[in-house]
Amino acid sequence: MSIDERGAVCVLGTGLIGGSLLRAAVAAGYPAFGYNRSETGVSAARQDGFEVSGDLSAVLARAAEVNALLVIAVPMPAVEHLLAEIAAHAPGCPLTDVVSVKGPVLDAVRKHGLEADYVGGHPMTGTAESGWAATDSELFRDAVWAVGVDEGTRVRPWSRVVALAVDCGSVVVPVVAEEHDRAVARISHLPHMLAEALAASGAEGGRLALGLAAGSFRDGTRVAATAPDLVRAICEPNATALEQVLDEAIETLVTARDRLRADGGLGELVETGFRGRTAYDNRATWDITGITPGVGDWLGELHRAGRDGGVLRTL
Amino acid sequence: MSIDERGAVCVLGTGLIGGSLLRAAVAAGYPAFGYNRSETGVSAARQDGFEVSGDLSAVLARAAEVNALLVIAVPMPAVEHLLAEIAAHAPGCPLTDVVSVKGPVLDAVRKHGLEADYVGGHPMTGTAESGWAATDSELFRDAVWAVGVDEGTRVRPWSRVVALAVDCGSVVVPVVAEEHDRAVARISHLPHMLAEALAASGAEGGRLALGLAAGSFRDGTRVAATAPDLVRAICEPNATALEQVLDEAIETLVTARDRLRADGGLGELVETGFRGRTAYDNRATWDITGITPGVGDWLGELHRAGRDGGVLRTL
Repeated sequence: MSIDERGAVCVLGTGLIGGSLLRAAVAAGYPAFGYNRSETGVSAARQDGFEVSGDLSAVLARAAEVNALLVIAVPMPAVEHLLAEIAAHAPGCPLTDVVSVKGPVLDAVRKHGLEADYVGGHPMTGTAESGWAATDSELFRDAVWAVGVDEGTRVRPWSRVVALAVDCGSVVVPVVAEEHDRAVARISHLPHMLAEALAASGAEGGRLALGLAAGSFRDGTRVAATAPDLVRAICEPNATALEQVLDEAIETLVTARDRLRADGGLGELVETGFRGRTAYDNRATWDITGITPGVGDWLGELHRAGRDGGVLRTL
Repeated sequence: MSIDERGAVCVLGTGLIGGSLLRAAVAAGYPAFGYNRSETGVSAARQDGFEVSGDLSAVLARAAEVNALLVIAVPMPAVEHLLAEIAAHAPGCPLTDVVSVKGPVLDAVRKHGLEADYVGGHPMTGTAESGWAATDSELFRDAVWAVGVDEGTRVRPWSRVVALAVDCGSVVVPVVAEEHDRAVARISHLPHMLAEALAASGAEGGRLALGLAAGSFRDGTRVAATAPDLVRAICEPNATALEQVLDEAIETLVTARDRLRADGGLGELVETGFRGRTAYDNRATWDITGITPGVGDWLGELHRAGRDGGVLRTL
């Protein structure tokens, strides 16, 4: 697939992730343009030489003309509005997103009748900063980019999403929406909850506790510095899966607390945690080969491969 | 207090903290020597030109001769044995420690009748590594070093401990043992517990979850990479205070989980956590002045100043 075949990219929302994607797509040679709601964001992107406009219907009309790949890059609460506009102005365009949950986006996409050309996406990257000023064309380099292989996914939009992810420097993990959401509840949303609880506990200790805090507290609370609205927009849409992992984490801590009270020992928790972190440090990926998109049970094969640690490094 | 007045330093245990302290003391001009139990550790230190021996009674006899400041730098489970030897061979030496809890050390010191010359200490620094190979004379630079101001503390040993901490590049926070232990339960031991629980939860999600894990999981589980025995040696001696903050953290998470289940919102936890992290980022210390060690209620005044964010930068 040459860049010409890959076609244009239209990024809807040019904050940290969307703006970085616009930069990365342009750097990779894509014709790319975008929309942003706030005038400040539009001006900042334009001053850096990017084609960004605040006129959503005009941007979508242009996307429809060139059959651009639409990338929804707004927090979940703003997704519905964009989908309604897409359904009105560019319903035939291939469509993806970079939202941190996949099930709720897929549901919304179906509600607006846009599922035929939709492929979910989620680049696992970011910083605690936000807005155009924080954008970076290298944000996706060596990151993992989850790409949907849900039932009904079509080859053509899927290939364009995978090509974009690879061209931005990421490796692709094929996932279905429900399993994605359960996994990110563990490794992205639970970390936020624990960081918030830790920051709250530290502050409860007053100036002495915060004054004595060193590396373990600093790292353990890093993501609690993220703007509260953004944390809520990331975690709340994944409520069902997050509740389950919160249940598990609470049970783990209750068991540890009870053991500590009973016999003063923390062995079980510490050994389990150490094994978990070691498994993370030693996690290995392998390259998925021999699956031809569109042929046979390609979606099922990619789904199983992704679940077992397989990644795509090229289209 | 000149280096001559400050006297020699004898470090008992030359692992990461003790070994780094030996390096830092020598770099600051102190006559300093040490003891280590393992022959490997002794050889490694000697090869780097430091006076370290595996003969504990000989090392303590030498310390007694020159009235060296003894620094206990072994994990809590090994403290009792050292105290018994100190009581036998060097009972008159000024004595401090760098153990991560203060109440249990103070109790043990009293049990061995060594409290008259004892001043608790705890430099808030370290890495996930251990042993002489990881030692660094700069480990204490710009760190916070908690120094005891418990009732009965005498000026002379207290001044020598503060001088050593300052000469190693640290700022001193005066604390009493019980408040120290409650504070570090929040900002040092709870972070370990939450990191272990998070690592366990991530690993429970299998290869997909660990494959999607990015910055928030990596930072949130960093300290779970610490050797399990070391984590237990750090946290278990502080069981009483740790149980209390575990209770609090569990309650915080249960409340958040219940709210999420009831109305899908995480606002309270996220706002509280963000305020906590902001308080940490904006924590300010101020220099304690106008208190003369040994004069009036100097211990009470230092205690209250430390609790309110005051630090000592010079003796």
